[in-house]
Amino acid sequence: MKRSYFLSKEKLGSQDSLPLDEVIENLAFNEQGLIPVITQNARTKQVLMMAWMNREALTRTLNSGRMTYWSRSRQEYWVKGETSGNTQALVQLSFDCDGDAVLCLVESAGPACHTGREHCFYLNVNADGQTVSLTDLT
Amino acid sequence: MKRSYFLSKEKLGSQDSLPLDEVIENLAFNEQGLIPVITQNARTKQVLMMAWMNREALTRTLNSGRMTYWSRSRQEYWVKGETSGNTQALVQLSFDCDGDAVLCLVESAGPACHTGREHCFYLNVNADGQTVSLTDLT
Repeated sequence: MKRSYFLSKEKLGSQDSLPLDEVIENLAFNEQGLIPVITQNARTKQVLMMAWMNREALTRTLNSGRMTYWSRSRQEYWVKGETSGNTQALVQLSFDCDGDAVLCLVESAGPACHTGREHCFYLNVNADGQTVSLTDLT
Repeated sequence: MKRSYFLSKEKLGSQDSLPLDEVIENLAFNEQGLIPVITQNARTKQVLMMAWMNREALTRTLNSGRMTYWSRSRQEYWVKGETSGNTQALVQLSFDCDGDAVLCLVESAGPACHTGREHCFYLNVNADGQTVSLTDLT
């Protein structure tokens, strides 16, 4: 992890700026060249999904404004909504304090989840601490 | 990835329940035995941080109600706030549709970030698409 880069910058404030290329260069992509991406609805603040980007997917997302992930199961770029129509338009992209995660605020044109649910985190541990219930399909 | 388990359950609804042990057994822990965890402020919905849990950290979090991560840099359990006092009390824990990510809603007793910022995602790509600005320290 190239944490020293981010550590050296953490006292900067909104009056300073860093070159985007330099920040990307120092991100902690994992051994598969991937970084986890959290996608959040910009309006409702609901966390929609978590997926992965490689450096190229990150660049494509920033340049196109359309959320573009790396599909680990299909081993290909995945422009969200390209087949389903449920696209995600990028509103704001942010990196975290040690450069090992990305947060994207998006405008979502439909459900984020392939099941048709608004978001993917629909398996909820119940108060009994023993069981899990699912959010209903809409 | 043990996606078939989650695929087979996705049409269930809130009237059904699954044993928590069974769900955990089928989570897609990575080759280091870890799963990514998104921590969100239950009240403000701000995404505070992303960290990792192994199976034991997940169990400890559920049993204690205190967010307990696995520190990859220190290779040890990390009860959030144990040294800083900025604890996180678990409100709701959820899994995603393919069992490879966890979302936790928490009540946060202080800033989530070691820099003192409210959350860790403070490096924001500017509208120029060329630079990154930081959220000010408070």
